[in-house]
This record gives sequence, C-alpha cells and structure tokens, in this order.
Amino acid sequence: MSGASPAPIRLVPLRGIGAVLPGDDLAAALRDAARRERIELTGGVLVVCQKVVSKAEGRVVALADVVPSDAARRLASEDGKDPRHLEVVLRETMRIVRRGPGVLVCETHHGFVCANAGVDLSNAPGEDVAVLLPLDPDASARRLRSSLGGPDAPAVIVSDTFGRPFREGLVDVALGCAGLAPIDDRRGSRDLAGRTLQVTAMATADQLAACAGLLMVKDAGVPAVFIEGFAVQGDGDARALLRPRERDLFR
Amino acid sequence: MSGASPAPIRLVPLRGIGAVLPGDDLAAALRDAARRERIELTGGVLVVCQKVVSKAEGRVVALADVVPSDAARRLASEDGKDPRHLEVVLRETMRIVRRGPGVLVCETHHGFVCANAGVDLSNAPGEDVAVLLPLDPDASARRLRSSLGGPDAPAVIVSDTFGRPFREGLVDVALGCAGLAPIDDRRGSRDLAGRTLQVTAMATADQLAACAGLLMVKDAGVPAVFIEGFAVQGDGDARALLRPRERDLFR
Repeated sequence: MSGASPAPIRLVPLRGIGAVLPGDDLAAALRDAARRERIELTGGVLVVCQKVVSKAEGRVVALADVVPSDAARRLASEDGKDPRHLEVVLRETMRIVRRGPGVLVCETHHGFVCANAGVDLSNAPGEDVAVLLPLDPDASARRLRSSLGGPDAPAVIVSDTFGRPFREGLVDVALGCAGLAPIDDRRGSRDLAGRTLQVTAMATADQLAACAGLLMVKDAGVPAVFIEGFAVQGDGDARALLRPRERDLFR
Repeated sequence: MSGASPAPIRLVPLRGIGAVLPGDDLAAALRDAARRERIELTGGVLVVCQKVVSKAEGRVVALADVVPSDAARRLASEDGKDPRHLEVVLRETMRIVRRGPGVLVCETHHGFVCANAGVDLSNAPGEDVAVLLPLDPDASARRLRSSLGGPDAPAVIVSDTFGRPFREGLVDVALGCAGLAPIDDRRGSRDLAGRTLQVTAMATADQLAACAGLLMVKDAGVPAVFIEGFAVQGDGDARALLRPRERDLFR
C-alpha cells in the first residue's frame, strides 16, 4: 500500500468445493464455485489452500507403499506415531530444526520451516494417505493462474497453515504466489513527520494468506477465498519470503 | 470458523486520522473516521495499530530526558544507534533473546518477542520521541471497546507489526484484544473423512490483525481498519497468544 490511500476490500469464501482427487481440474472447480458466489475471478487475489493444490497435482503418498527407514522407526516409536508417516516426513526434510515432545520442526527441501515438513494426514482422500507440499508452490500458483485465464486472472496465492515460534496458534502463510509482489517494500518512504522509515518491508503475500485463512474451512469444503478489490502490485515468487539460513538468528 | 459456513466479510480502512497526541480521545477520532466512511462501528472487529493507542495513552518518552546506562551506551556504539533509544529499549526488556547485526530481538516485560522491545522512533509526534508498547494491551483494547459503546461495540484488536524467524518481511499481530476469543480452537473437530483433527488451533486474532494490516498505512493517517461481517466468537485476552518460554523450542 505504498503511497496510495487504500480502498475497502471484500473477502468471498468459495464454498461447496468437494474432495479434490489427483488429476482433478482445480481451476474448473474454482471457477464453478465463483459462479455460485456470483463473482468474477478477475483482478484481486485468489488464495487457495495447499492441500487441494497438492491433491490435484498428485502429491499424495499411500502409506501402504512406504517402507520406513530405521531413523523413521526410531522417531516414530519415541513419539508414538506411524513410522510410515515419519518416513515420508524425513524424505521431505532437508534438516530437522528442532524436536520437541511430539513435534518435529523441519526445514523442507524448498526451505520452508514447519512441523512435519508440511506432510499432513488429515483431510486426505481416504485413510492412510499422506499429502505433501507441492514440489514448487510458485510454479503451482503460476499454472493455476494461467488456467484461470492468464493476464486478466486474479493473482494466485497457495497458502498453508503453519505454527511459529514465540506465539500460540497457527496462521496461514503464502507458500507460492503468482501475479503479485510477495513483499511490499516501504523502506525509504517517509512517515508523517518526514522521517525516513527504516524497516517496513511488509510480507504482503503472508498477510493476504492470513486474511483468507479467516474464512477457510478446509474440513468443510471451503479451500479457497477470493480477495476482491485489493490493489495488486508487482510480481515475484513467494520463495522471496524464505529467509536464508545464514541470515536467520533462530536456525 | 468452527463448523458454520463462512459468509463474505469487508475491510474498511478508517482514513484521515491525523497525528494522535497524549490525552487525545482516540475513540472519538475513530468514530468520526467511521462516520466519514459511512459505516456503523457495531459488530465486527475494529483493528487499531498500537502506535496511536500508545500515543493517546501517553506511552511516549522524550529522548532528551533519558540518561543512557553503560549497557545502553555499549550496545548503541557497537550498532551505531542512539544510546537513549537503546536505554528505553532495555527498560522495556525482560531478556535479550537474540542479537544480530543491528538487530536486538527482545522479550518484553509482557512476554512479546520482537525487535527493540517494540520501542519505535518513527511516526512520533515530533523529533526525538520514543513510542513504547501499551503497558497492558488487553486493557487498552477493553477500554477502547468500552469507549466505543460497550456490548454493541465491535470487538477491538490492538495490533503491531512484527518480524519473525524463518521468514522475511513483517506481519501484523494482535497485542491486545477485547470481545473475541484470540484463538479458535478446532481441535477435536472432524475433517471431511471423519478423522479427528489433531492440531488446528487457529490464531484468529493474529489473522485479523494481518488482514487489517493490508490496508493500514501508518505513515499516511490510516491507523485503523474495520472488519465488517466477521462472525466474532467468544472472548479472551490476546496474552493467550504468548507461548510460555518453557514451551518454546526457540527461546
């Protein structure tokens, strides 16, 4: 929102989207849902939860096919978990960042730091299926945006629900985005007293994901929210939100 | 959003609020701004940035009156900062959590973990003034809500802009709240497959703060955003969002 005075925005949940299966046309399902809400998916920002994106892309693993390693067996037995789940988690993990009682905070191969490397068992299409994060969430967002109509299409954010240090409760963050700048860099702008602002690079894509998260009900068929009227600026990959380990005081 | 199907919500920035000074009637300024936007401040959630709350409450310190300690002088000289600023930061600090190049991550006496203990020099009403966090942001939110009309008034969140580990860019979080439950605990509810969800306690107050942050322009007279149509549930203090140090893997 650098400079310009902001106008009101509206959040519209895209309801009634059923279970998504590998190979499903997610863009078509989203367009149908938007039609039911009587909105046009042009301009603005469409936030879609990672789980339906991953499912449509086939990023699911049947646990029956997983042979757990010794490391996965050890971790699982110590925490009372399914060793096959832990095996999938370890495959998605570049480095274990912290281990607490029943909690494994992992850095994924993409560079996300989150519980269980983002591997989720809930809401899976059937029992004993693990849902993984998309291989490249920025590419997923770009593909989805392109399927939604190209340049006229809304910006797209692929979001997921993460815990964080210091604070209780989960918040939604942007894993991938297309058609907007993930960070709104206000450094160099001036405050009311004319003083140059020092550090106000806002994580716009994460704020949009959090905003949409207010209306998502992943367990009740609301995996996407359209943000109407938000003045989208710039372009870039959400991977810019990942702080490199060498500049992180907490890894 | 436990259970019920969500309805659309609308975010309205409260524009044209000028500089706020100690003793100012912030509730009156917010009501006037709402009238200009032609909205009723009933129901929903009003998010107000900490800085105007702190200023109205007189939580400002003239740096000319501050005598820096040896510790503040040492930190300041190493980082090329104003020792009086550092002195105010140290007074607000219970414990320094991390120190990086030019960055001091502090745990405040309230339990917030943030840069410089939340002490800010920008946007101050005049040069050389430090703005501190409210003494008790939940109490600030309750007082503001009460001044806005009591039970009919919107829920109130006092927000601030924080950095975080692992991810670049700042996001807005809830320091204080009144009239809503800061955490929406969905644990025990079931997913589409009937499986009990394990850990989905959403930090609703933080998501609302982030949402409002999209439209705040603190350096251009938009220090508050009204969230219309959000189904407010429960009640509680935002201090519930502070993870106790002994349960935090990163302190």
